[in-house]
Amino acid sequence: MKKPLLIFILVSCLTPAIAQKTDVDKKLKELGIELFAPPKPLANYVRAVRTGNLVYLAGHGPTKSDGSNTTGKLGKDMTIEQGYEAAKQTGIALLSSLKGEIGDLNKVKRIVKVFGMVNCTPEFVDQPKVINGFSDLMVSIFGDKGKHARSAVGMISLPNGIAVEIEMIVEVEN
Amino acid sequence: MKKPLLIFILVSCLTPAIAQKTDVDKKLKELGIELFAPPKPLANYVRAVRTGNLVYLAGHGPTKSDGSNTTGKLGKDMTIEQGYEAAKQTGIALLSSLKGEIGDLNKVKRIVKVFGMVNCTPEFVDQPKVINGFSDLMVSIFGDKGKHARSAVGMISLPNGIAVEIEMIVEVEN
Amino acid sequence: MKKPLLIFILVSCLTPAIAQKTDVDKKLKELGIELFAPPKPLANYVRAVRTGNLVYLAGHGPTKSDGSNTTGKLGKDMTIEQGYEAAKQTGIALLSSLKGEIGDLNKVKRIVKVFGMVNCTPEFVDQPKVINGFSDLMVSIFGDKGKHARSAVGMISLPNGIAVEIEMIVEVEN
Repeated sequence: MKKPLLIFILVSCLTPAIAQKTDVDKKLKELGIELFAPPKPLANYVRAVRTGNLVYLAGHGPTKSDGSNTTGKLGKDMTIEQGYEAAKQTGIALLSSLKGEIGDLNKVKRIVKVFGMVNCTPEFVDQPKVINGFSDLMVSIFGDKGKHARSAVGMISLPNGIAVEIEMIVEVEN
Repeated sequence: MKKPLLIFILVSCLTPAIAQKTDVDKKLKELGIELFAPPKPLANYVRAVRTGNLVYLAGHGPTKSDGSNTTGKLGKDMTIEQGYEAAKQTGIALLSSLKGEIGDLNKVKRIVKVFGMVNCTPEFVDQPKVINGFSDLMVSIFGDKGKHARSAVGMISLPNGIAVEIEMIVEVEN
Repeated sequence: MKKPLLIFILVSCLTPAIAQKTDVDKKLKELGIELFAPPKPLANYVRAVRTGNLVYLAGHGPTKSDGSNTTGKLGKDMTIEQGYEAAKQTGIALLSSLKGEIGDLNKVKRIVKVFGMVNCTPEFVDQPKVINGFSDLMVSIFGDKGKHARSAVGMISLPNGIAVEIEMIVEVEN
């Protein structure tokens, strides 16, 4: 094979890969989302464990870059909109930890499974509308790869009174 | 090898496979259970995600074929028997989604892990008796393959007031 | 190769493996922890299911070797210290079931994911301090292999009023 042709083929093959490679970071920038270094766990556990191609993320709360958290109970202290924002913030915290584990969010193959917990009263029944703040974020960043199997449920109480806690399983490239 | 012998051997080998192949659908019929097309999720998530040989099912409620759900709190609005039926109905909804994902329920190798959530009062402590409605269904359909590791726990509230929500992980054939 | 040299190499290679092999049982002895045969589930589920290199443990409670359980609600009936002890006891129950499944706890490669549930009042927010009883135990036995991704959350009610329920996923050697 002649050299120029070979180079052409190589470039053609690699271009989409490179384009995709920069996608997630560009998307985050477009959406105005800044990841942060999540605070270290204070106890004998870690933020993420990888086994094979799956990364298990610990339950995260709506932690902001300054380390503070959104607290409160849905159905009493907060509106659904505020809950939605808390769930979105929880997504940002989870992605921050995920990036810490895998180095590059472009390695994400699929957000597989999500367990979304909402701190709420016994009468509150709109957990899905709250956890949508997380799910919408994932799909706006990862597209179809961001579509996950999920549960969105009510909890009597969460650590330090945080409004939302979410854990997830992510499939990543080798 | 002579042809008749070869055919005999082939038929002998294939017969059990075929017999097993029709087993789950036959069993469902025997039990009078009809699967249905589950309603599409209204948000940015999906009913099931497969990764490798594992299928992760989203949290499902006691949805009937007409799309309605059993609602109520155990310990207040419902008897254990009604909860048991709701858990069984949730199992039917889960299998409907699973069939939508893998096409053929005979591909099920094992119901691996189940998280069973019961909408209840703080005093209600019979979550296992409720979730048995799901577990008994799985074993009556799949036999030993239906025996799973599970948790059966109480929740302060579930989406739209459903009585039971269950999620599960299923190992399937290639 | 001369025989004595071969034997020397073999012994050198095997010694660390043997040393490690006896580690977990020795550690359990040092810590004064005795595993026990966990009571059989009373319904259509099992204590553990293995798929590939992962073992999924069912939700376990703070069961003692005599079969009795620690019951009560945090924030009302129990101190954090008592909750911590219940979480530790739950860890012992889980390891008892894990040993029943894999035969030898030295096969543990990693405690991957833990879901820690605390029976509590709506005002109780110290679930992490309770579940630390479990996490500290795992790290004291398995070292870094015992460090897991976890959630520690509040539940309105648990089966038979148990104070703590924990489920976990463990990666094991082939």
